Amino acid sequence: MTQAALYVGNRTFTVVDRPAVPPGPGEVRVVVAYTGICGTDLHVLHGAMDHRVSAPAVIGHEMSGRIAELGAGVTGWRVGDAVTVMPLAWCGDCPACRAGHQHVCHRLDFIGIDSPGAMQGSWTVPAGTLVALPEGLSLRHAALIEPTAVAVHDVRRSRLAAGERAVVIGAGPVGLLIAGVARTAGAHVLLVELDPHRRDVATRLGFTVVDPATTDPADAVDERTGGAGAAVVFEVSGSAGGIRTATGLLAVRGRLVVVGIHPTPREVDLHRVFWRELEIVGARVYQRVDFTEAVRLLAAGEVPAEDLITEVVPLRDVAGAFDALERGGVVKILIDCGGGR
Amino acid sequence: MTQAALYVGNRTFTVVDRPAVPPGPGEVRVVVAYTGICGTDLHVLHGAMDHRVSAPAVIGHEMSGRIAELGAGVTGWRVGDAVTVMPLAWCGDCPACRAGHQHVCHRLDFIGIDSPGAMQGSWTVPAGTLVALPEGLSLRHAALIEPTAVAVHDVRRSRLAAGERAVVIGAGPVGLLIAGVARTAGAHVLLVELDPHRRDVATRLGFTVVDPATTDPADAVDERTGGAGAAVVFEVSGSAGGIRTATGLLAVRGRLVVVGIHPTPREVDLHRVFWRELEIVGARVYQRVDFTEAVRLLAAGEVPAEDLITEVVPLRDVAGAFDALERGGVVKILIDCGGGR
Ligand SMILES: [Zn+2]
Ligand SMILES: [Zn+2]
Repeated sequence: MTQAALYVGNRTFTVVDRPAVPPGPGEVRVVVAYTGICGTDLHVLHGAMDHRVSAPAVIGHEMSGRIAELGAGVTGWRVGDAVTVMPLAWCGDCPACRAGHQHVCHRLDFIGIDSPGAMQGSWTVPAGTLVALPEGLSLRHAALIEPTAVAVHDVRRSRLAAGERAVVIGAGPVGLLIAGVARTAGAHVLLVELDPHRRDVATRLGFTVVDPATTDPADAVDERTGGAGAAVVFEVSGSAGGIRTATGLLAVRGRLVVVGIHPTPREVDLHRVFWRELEIVGARVYQRVDFTEAVRLLAAGEVPAEDLITEVVPLRDVAGAFDALERGGVVKILIDCGGGR
Repeated sequence: MTQAALYVGNRTFTVVDRPAVPPGPGEVRVVVAYTGICGTDLHVLHGAMDHRVSAPAVIGHEMSGRIAELGAGVTGWRVGDAVTVMPLAWCGDCPACRAGHQHVCHRLDFIGIDSPGAMQGSWTVPAGTLVALPEGLSLRHAALIEPTAVAVHDVRRSRLAAGERAVVIGAGPVGLLIAGVARTAGAHVLLVELDPHRRDVATRLGFTVVDPATTDPADAVDERTGGAGAAVVFEVSGSAGGIRTATGLLAVRGRLVVVGIHPTPREVDLHRVFWRELEIVGARVYQRVDFTEAVRLLAAGEVPAEDLITEVVPLRDVAGAFDALERGGVVKILIDCGGGR
């Protein structure tokens, strides 16, 4: 039997005991150590993802654990191996897959949303999704690999170079990780964030943060770049105002990376896009190479993992963890699924 | 004395005879053969550029001619050389210039708008703007080099590769030139155009053209790409609808090049930008390398110059030429400034 947090609809989680799913051919069963809660998981709780999540469902996709059981035909892995999962399954046959962009497959199965996730003691996944963890990287910190891979992908899409000025609009977990990855890439980083709690966290992590309610981000950037503007802006807030601010901050040939979710079309200053030859670049999930780099960064201590983990709560308290996330003032909450002990 | 078309404000041109401007140090005086009328020139006539053009002013920036006189210190050129002009003068000192992007200088002087242009018999310009014409390229066709350089720049910014599918929204002179350059690059080109006259011209040039009023461009693209979408869309119409159509046509990792002028912010489907990892790329004027390529394409007959030139009118009829352009049904009108005879 394994404990599992079930999203049952109506803004509710139920924790149940049920049989673990045995691995089929090509699959592995992983004993889950820690599962992080992501903004998308919160959207699931709010019912906003009900078109993709059919309750009752186990969600969760930021995790670490150890292999417990190998299905038929799985090679290259051993029981006990420390792993995380790159939670993507693609069709292999659509135009995106055939063009080599499997991570944005037209029929992408995002494991943990479109199929069962990691908020349970035992998780069965395709062996091809496994990512090996190096010695010395704690399972606690390894639960941050997936969101770090998002940040690595976003930074890679931006073509950010050492010495360039990057601005991150939105200092939630993804924004902070992007800022951290950009800083390790040698960029000068400025964060823009309205929420004072989030500004405090960012400041504690050593970042310069601007409150757009009191300081015009354009002035802050002009001052730091001699009027040139920023080479890269990451729009993580998903807000109309964030997009408006972003285009106004960019230098000639600057890149705006669209990280946040914009549910409706946004007004974009295309005249400035033309005038300054800007680029607006979409960035979604990650590719293998991003996971590899995320593992390296976390293992090398280049990501301030400990400062990002606000709290670790037992699986039976999953509902309380979601409540805490909704109230704000926290960065990352990990669910202890039992496999780390 | 030289004949000159003066924009005097109030939607009016006056043709006058006045002394030619002698070349100062580093300048050359060019006897102008042909000057094309551009959409921007039409905006000037409508008063929309009065913040940049102080009447009375000579405008015009698409031209060909021969060197008539060299100013002090000019080397590398001889009287009689056939030339065109890359009509940009940059400050050399702003952040854009210092970053190597002089063509989008923060204080760019676009010669022919911000300073006197080519709709006159004799035009004095900095020697650094000259572009040599090869033997065998007629001065008539050479007047198309500047708009062709725009198209070359747009296609270069799109990173269009041979075998890719490109869609051009808007089949005016710039759209047709982009389509032509994209075709010579080995792309499969589809044009989208509402105006039946423009569709006729595009068809005559051998392009496939879709009328968006009767055929959904997305269906046309899906049909031709097996549901993948287009690799590149050039938005040349400058309309809100063009932008809406453009994002809907693009394949995963597709590029939307913003060529048209969008005077107000436009609603953009940023969710699709994110979901398909699209890029929106601004492209403005050109660089030296684009002029070099435009000269090569015209000299090699790769641009259907003769089919694009609807009419050649004498300088004294400049007002009538602008009227014809406003009425529509024409592609490119050249003004015969006298230097080609
Ligand atoms: Zn696929
Ligand atoms: Zn400059």
